[in-house]
Amino acid sequence: MAHFPTSDGRAAWRANVLTLFTDMFPGPLGVSLVGQALDAGVWSLTTHQIRDFGLGRHRQVDDTPAGGGAGMVLRADVLGAAVDAARAANPDSPLIYLSPRGRPFDQAMAKTLSAGPGVVLLAGRFEGVDERVIAGRGLMEVSIGDYVLSGGELAAMVLIDACVRLLPGVLGAPESLAHESFEGGLLEYPQYTRPREWEGSGIPEVLLSGDHQAIAAWRRAEAQRITAQRRPDLTRKPEHD
Amino acid sequence: MAHFPTSDGRAAWRANVLTLFTDMFPGPLGVSLVGQALDAGVWSLTTHQIRDFGLGRHRQVDDTPAGGGAGMVLRADVLGAAVDAARAANPDSPLIYLSPRGRPFDQAMAKTLSAGPGVVLLAGRFEGVDERVIAGRGLMEVSIGDYVLSGGELAAMVLIDACVRLLPGVLGAPESLAHESFEGGLLEYPQYTRPREWEGSGIPEVLLSGDHQAIAAWRRAEAQRITAQRRPDLTRKPEHD
Repeated sequence: MAHFPTSDGRAAWRANVLTLFTDMFPGPLGVSLVGQALDAGVWSLTTHQIRDFGLGRHRQVDDTPAGGGAGMVLRADVLGAAVDAARAANPDSPLIYLSPRGRPFDQAMAKTLSAGPGVVLLAGRFEGVDERVIAGRGLMEVSIGDYVLSGGELAAMVLIDACVRLLPGVLGAPESLAHESFEGGLLEYPQYTRPREWEGSGIPEVLLSGDHQAIAAWRRAEAQRITAQRRPDLTRKPEHD
Repeated sequence: MAHFPTSDGRAAWRANVLTLFTDMFPGPLGVSLVGQALDAGVWSLTTHQIRDFGLGRHRQVDDTPAGGGAGMVLRADVLGAAVDAARAANPDSPLIYLSPRGRPFDQAMAKTLSAGPGVVLLAGRFEGVDERVIAGRGLMEVSIGDYVLSGGELAAMVLIDACVRLLPGVLGAPESLAHESFEGGLLEYPQYTRPREWEGSGIPEVLLSGDHQAIAAWRRAEAQRITAQRRPDLTRKPEHD
């Protein structure tokens, strides 16, 4: 178990990751605003090496699929013990198994999770995990998207990053959060900056007008237009959390 | 520009990433099967530091949003030059900007991209990029999911990982790909392994029967049941690529 630096008295948001590749962490999560927040103790990151719970001299963690087929499956007994150890220190945090079969992770779930004490994440590898550990430990299956990864580690990082940036004090400008994509079920409006003219293309006049009301109206209309054009499903989707 | 080890004569699949955080790479992509494939030259990874194209003594890359608002926007002139440099070496690879406003990345897109020469990925930060560079350079916007990240780097890694594991020779057992989630529009069936009994819970009898036809039928039925229960939208979605 590796515990990365944290804590200055406040209750930090606690990310726990069960993985066979603890060296991947913090990795990209140690950089930029999210990394600075880790250093500052706004959140903490603890990795749990699944192999520590492996069996026998070789610390075996997987075995062949019952019924045959390619690849290896992570054993329920090994994972059960690993999950129990991680959970003991984080009894109130949701237990999540990152899997393409899971409920789609979205901004509403990021908000809900970031408002809680933290998360205990299981990052699988190989062909997946023994189904019995999912029911036996009440793991919530969560998917970051409709594609297959070589392991759950990148998915865990994505989930953590999306949550951590919502924690108070992580983003320099909290107002940023108010207009970003998925707020109010909309994608974000287009952004422009200097230079005023680039390769014959200018900035929409209204943005240079100084008329804050007109600018806000234009941005709202653009966000609606882009959402209707690209993701009409977002506006049909009921808000949930 | 950092070019990670590759190539043994075959044409490697080429991943290019434009980023302000080149140190994040290869990071998680340097580990396990995907990392071994990188070392073996099955694919290559080149990072392009956007700041190398920054302006003035401070190599400025961003500026305040036209029309006001929080945060900073990456400049079209800086990004245009960075994209041009990356594209010059990879004229046939799709140019992708990772953005929550983009077309949802899915397994079909991973297959299409992995069958091509590679990708040139733009990982943004801050409030996003000047809209003019998207049209001006024909960037395809792609989203890995309906949530907001602190930057595009993790999204780039996810896209690369999903593509690289599909390249010939990367997975130990290519048959693994035939039954995984999203094949035939289905989520994967449950997996089990030893021990045969765990905490009072057994393995479904059929998987222990040795009857390969019955096992295949059970797995297909389970995949259909789980998909119908969790993601009925997947079966309604037409196959596309």
